[in-house]
Formats: sequence, structure tokens, C-alpha cells
Amino acid sequence: MKIFGIDPGSDRTGYGCVETDGSRHHLVTCGAIKTPSSATFPEKLLVIHSCLTTLLRECRPDSVAIENLFHAVNVRSALKLGHARGVAMLAAVEAGVTVAEYTPAEIKRAVVGYGRAEKTQVQQMIKLLLGLSEAPSPHDAADALAVALCHIHAQPPARIAGVLAAPRVRKSATSWRQYRP
Amino acid sequence: MKIFGIDPGSDRTGYGCVETDGSRHHLVTCGAIKTPSSATFPEKLLVIHSCLTTLLRECRPDSVAIENLFHAVNVRSALKLGHARGVAMLAAVEAGVTVAEYTPAEIKRAVVGYGRAEKTQVQQMIKLLLGLSEAPSPHDAADALAVALCHIHAQPPARIAGVLAAPRVRKSATSWRQYRP
Repeated sequence: MKIFGIDPGSDRTGYGCVETDGSRHHLVTCGAIKTPSSATFPEKLLVIHSCLTTLLRECRPDSVAIENLFHAVNVRSALKLGHARGVAMLAAVEAGVTVAEYTPAEIKRAVVGYGRAEKTQVQQMIKLLLGLSEAPSPHDAADALAVALCHIHAQPPARIAGVLAAPRVRKSATSWRQYRP
Repeated sequence: MKIFGIDPGSDRTGYGCVETDGSRHHLVTCGAIKTPSSATFPEKLLVIHSCLTTLLRECRPDSVAIENLFHAVNVRSALKLGHARGVAMLAAVEAGVTVAEYTPAEIKRAVVGYGRAEKTQVQQMIKLLLGLSEAPSPHDAADALAVALCHIHAQPPARIAGVLAAPRVRKSATSWRQYRP
């Protein structure tokens, strides 16, 4: 089972893909999409969307997991973050995979065992869980891997073993794309 | 000069396209994209994005204008609205057109002459400015036409007359799509 985690942001979008057989997790890829500072805001969204589309085509995950931020600092930053999350979700559904959302507390609880864990604790646990020689960098990549691991922990063992199929987008992306209201 | 206005929302996204020679405005098309209630949130984003992509391909506008909402009711609704705005902006930049943003007060001032005008006043002015037999319906379509008209009023006359070219997306959508951070 392969999970693709996304930590969206208009300046930097972290991503990380983890493969698991239920007991052992294996890092497929991770990194951050840094949008060019010379780009306008809509152009940044285009960069995020096209990079994620390429990565999802390469990784072919079973699910996409994304952090759910209800408690953004203020309305303006929530609105800005929403744009980046929107194009990230679009890339996922265009790739035909479902999107799971987790709050920061759920992610920390799943990875560290404590909902108010520090960032460095999360990074150390990711290093341990994925058997890496050092903590993943940049931190956006670590955050994306954390949400992917959180989604893995939330799956019933039968689904990871492949006995229970992962939920798919109910209609194919193509048919939703042709939907006319 | 052709302007495509968008009033984004995850349940209903209004759109309206207006053509102008500077003195007379002409309605090209307007309506609302109603997302299916059975769709998940990411699927709704896919519907909005694909419908807008088709409409922009048909209308071939010089610019896209979109309402800028700094004062969304709360963080949660701002985040949700941001997703819809994000995929709307993505559709515009993919079509190679720039995106202009206006606040609700700027739109009302441009259309009615008063920043705190009522919704019905805006609708009546749109009917008048576009020479329609009745006010455009649904109200999301009227809101989209209002932002398109606001953008037209913000243009220097030379741009409308075609002497001054409309700004384009600086790099083509294709080259931003191939950008690798």
C-alpha cells in the first residue's frame, strides 16, 4: 500500500510518499515544491498543481493524505492556504485517488503518540519509523511524511494487506470532469 | 475586449462573460456551476475546475476578474472558499489569462457608484448596463457579471480600444507547468 502525503502552502508545498506492508514502512520519495518568488499567486498555484500531478503520476499512490488546518492564524492566511490546498486536492482527484484529511493533533498522536508533540519529536519519529539515516529535510517534506504515516496508522490491517480494497474516487475523474450542472 | 468574471463557491460558482468596445457592453454568456451534492469536496473542486476550463476555452477572454473576500465569515469558511478560488484561478492561468481581483466594495462602487449598495441594486444596474430584458439569474451569475464590469471600468480607455494590449501571463502556462523547483 502506497500513501502520498501533502503539506500544502503557496510558497512551499511538502510532499512525501510511503510504501508499507503493514509492519515495515519504506520511503518512496519526499521533498518540497518551492514556488518561484517571481511568479504571481495564480502562477504559483499552477506550479504546485503541475508538480503534484507529475509526482502522483510517478508514485501512483493508493491514497492521498493532507493536513487539515481549521485553526489557521487568521482569515487572510486561511484563504491563501485554501487556494494551495484546493489545487493539491484537485491534482489528487484528477489522478483518481481519494483524499483523507487529518488535523495536526491527529497526525502528532499517530506518529509520536502525543497530540501536542514538538516538530523535532515528529521528525525524529519519522526518521525512526522509516529507518532513515537522518531526519527528512526540509521540514515541509517531514510534515508531508507525517500525514502519510498518520493515514497508514488509520487503516485497518486487512486494507494494508490488500485483502480489503482501498476506497477509490466513486466516479472516475473523467466522468466528473464531464459533469454538466 | 472580453472579460470573464467568476464568483467562486464550493456549492455554486457563478460566471459571466462581458464583451465591450468601451461605450457599449454586451453579454456573452452567464450562469452558475452547481456542484452535485453527492460529490465529495475534492470531486466538487474537479467539477468547478473542468467546467471553468471548458467555459474559458469557449469564451477566450482577455482577462479573468474574481471577487476578493478578505472578510469571510470565519476561518473555516475562508479556508473552504479558498479551495474553490484556488481551482478557479488555476483554470484561468492554465488558459493563459491574467487574474484581476476586486473587493466587494470596489465592485459595488464600480457598478452602482456606492460601496455599500444592496444586492438588488447591483442586479438592476447589471440589467441596465448590459441592456438585458431582466436581471440575470441566478444571483451568482449576476455577481460574476458585476466583477467583470468592475474590471472593465478599471481599464484605461486605450486598452479597451485595443491600442494598449491587455497584460498576459508573463511566461506561458506551459512553461510554468514545466517549472521544476
